[in-house]
Amino acid sequence: MDHLQQSFAVRFTYNVFFTEHLFAPANSLLTDFLQSRRQEGTTQKILFVLDSGVVAHHPELPTQITSYFASVRTASLVPDLLILPGGEAAKNDPDLVEQIVDAVDRYGIDRHSYIAAVGGGSVLDLVGYAAAISHRGIRHIRIPTTVLSQNDSGVGVKNGVNYRGKKNFLGTFAPPVAVFNDLTFLTSLDDRDWRAGISEAIKVALIKDKPFFDWIEANAAALAHRDMVAMQYLVHRCAEMHLQHIAGGDPFEMGSSRPLDFGHWSAHKLEQLTNFDLRHGEAVAIGIALDSLYSHDLGWLTETEVNRILTTLHTLGFSLYHPMLDADNSVGILKGLAEFREHLGGRLTIMLLETIGKGVEVNEMDADRIRRAINTLREQELINL
Amino acid sequence: MDHLQQSFAVRFTYNVFFTEHLFAPANSLLTDFLQSRRQEGTTQKILFVLDSGVVAHHPELPTQITSYFASVRTASLVPDLLILPGGEAAKNDPDLVEQIVDAVDRYGIDRHSYIAAVGGGSVLDLVGYAAAISHRGIRHIRIPTTVLSQNDSGVGVKNGVNYRGKKNFLGTFAPPVAVFNDLTFLTSLDDRDWRAGISEAIKVALIKDKPFFDWIEANAAALAHRDMVAMQYLVHRCAEMHLQHIAGGDPFEMGSSRPLDFGHWSAHKLEQLTNFDLRHGEAVAIGIALDSLYSHDLGWLTETEVNRILTTLHTLGFSLYHPMLDADNSVGILKGLAEFREHLGGRLTIMLLETIGKGVEVNEMDADRIRRAINTLREQELINL
Repeated sequence: MDHLQQSFAVRFTYNVFFTEHLFAPANSLLTDFLQSRRQEGTTQKILFVLDSGVVAHHPELPTQITSYFASVRTASLVPDLLILPGGEAAKNDPDLVEQIVDAVDRYGIDRHSYIAAVGGGSVLDLVGYAAAISHRGIRHIRIPTTVLSQNDSGVGVKNGVNYRGKKNFLGTFAPPVAVFNDLTFLTSLDDRDWRAGISEAIKVALIKDKPFFDWIEANAAALAHRDMVAMQYLVHRCAEMHLQHIAGGDPFEMGSSRPLDFGHWSAHKLEQLTNFDLRHGEAVAIGIALDSLYSHDLGWLTETEVNRILTTLHTLGFSLYHPMLDADNSVGILKGLAEFREHLGGRLTIMLLETIGKGVEVNEMDADRIRRAINTLREQELINL
Repeated sequence: MDHLQQSFAVRFTYNVFFTEHLFAPANSLLTDFLQSRRQEGTTQKILFVLDSGVVAHHPELPTQITSYFASVRTASLVPDLLILPGGEAAKNDPDLVEQIVDAVDRYGIDRHSYIAAVGGGSVLDLVGYAAAISHRGIRHIRIPTTVLSQNDSGVGVKNGVNYRGKKNFLGTFAPPVAVFNDLTFLTSLDDRDWRAGISEAIKVALIKDKPFFDWIEANAAALAHRDMVAMQYLVHRCAEMHLQHIAGGDPFEMGSSRPLDFGHWSAHKLEQLTNFDLRHGEAVAIGIALDSLYSHDLGWLTETEVNRILTTLHTLGFSLYHPMLDADNSVGILKGLAEFREHLGGRLTIMLLETIGKGVEVNEMDADRIRRAINTLREQELINL
């Protein structure tokens, strides 16, 4: 049959910078970046969107940003900094997407201009989405402020908002033009947010990098006590592995598998069952514990290995059981497994562990083994209380 | 400074098929395509969105589609075919995006499933946008029904809707997984829509392919009399050049130039000034005439060449003057030039003609020369009346 074939590749390139005090007058990292991207004859504007939770901990931030840009000639700051609610609420309110799109319109932000988001993963997801759909994609700069966003979602290529309560129902794949990981923001996180981000590092170490898991295990107490040097290494290594995974795989997930999602199928459901009272990273820690026990039950992970994993999670301060694990099957995590299968288009793909540092994919999970793993988590929780 | 560099390429591949009677029971083109894309163990659903204007001319279409899929095993048709208004109205109503997203939710359309759009460029733009933002991109099949969409926008990679009257303010770059150009739909177009699509072919011929312009000139009368064989060739060649332009250039327009847009700066403004009473292709015909005269005024195109262009446009039945060309400067097409400059980020890039078949970019346009070209168009219109 008569046809024309179209085929082309689009290259995406961006840097993830590590710094401290990004908006200090002496720190030229951001302005150097903007200067390097400037095209002669064009005007670069930059619109900032700030997470209200970050501003609450850093009330000086808006003034700092305004001062920082006062003497900058390579880009012109939109004087009106948008401050939007952080956390999952950022992704549940369609008006917030509209507020950003309105600002794009009002201030004439074009495809040579930038939207910079400063905040946790939810605000980055929201702003990334609004930037991606405005003018078919405005240049987007991410300045993640949590452990989780600095080492995982913030350095990746996804964005999204919820739609009628369905997580990330609306979104696109749209790489940022740059990410600036400012360690300073991590100092003001509360303990839960500090800890929650670590579970993605454990996840990636368990499926790909035994030496990294060994390091996390050895540094778990230091991390729990908020050792900044240890956290700096953890964020850097985890971000590096996340970037490698994206570049080496299927960046826009046009195929079917999602092999980095160890411990995630139950985590997604637990977040929803607890009405997002459990943070993503806290739910992932439980999911990692569950799927590690399941892998042991299959005869893959040794008992020593599974104990090392559970002990490391405990040392970091994670709680590894939640009553919602025992919710009725009709709404509980087995339902989550069915939903995950549907989400993947009917063919289930779940990552489990053959050994520490080596993940392996399976296409089915057994309800009895899941139940046994949950029982173990419940019993261990009682012992730990 | 410490940083990680991310770099990856994403490949996009799709076919543009040429056929007739796509939904005839004996035509297996579409089902063969779906079969070729099927992954074992997954369920492919397909949701159709139809342009109400097309259904008005082809009232049997919904039944045809339902019958066609009745015996198909490779994909399961969502029984509820959405019929949405066509034309620019499709892109002005945010509720229509929501209607499609709601259907995605209601029928569980996932990333292994398809949304197929049957219609003119506006409906394709609307549906493409809704598909692109749902679940970070649902597979999108385009079945363009107008000359313009079969030879230009429908085979490309853009989508979009208007926002508060601003054209294509919201949109993404998202290639379809396949395009099916069914010649049958062209037979039922009214004369204006038949003709309007030809101007994009003239545009691309003028800037890139003299033999193609020679062919259009020689076949202008046949095309005006709705010769189907001539139209088939025109659509095929124009689509081919449009695909080559995308693949050979900057598919997602991450740089700054838009070199295929000959005759478009004034056309966009004329569409708006006439409240979309002028169709896009009709406005482009005027824009081509204007910028051809301008190119002649600069001493580039010869008088013979500019007359060949104007005569070809006339033979095809285009009107080459509109009173809005003489609208006051504060709102008129010179304002459009300023807006176009702003849209491009401050640096103007306009394609003009050195000779037939060879476009050349300039970075400024002279108001007096534009005025002279408009005067010529007005005078010629009086002679032709």
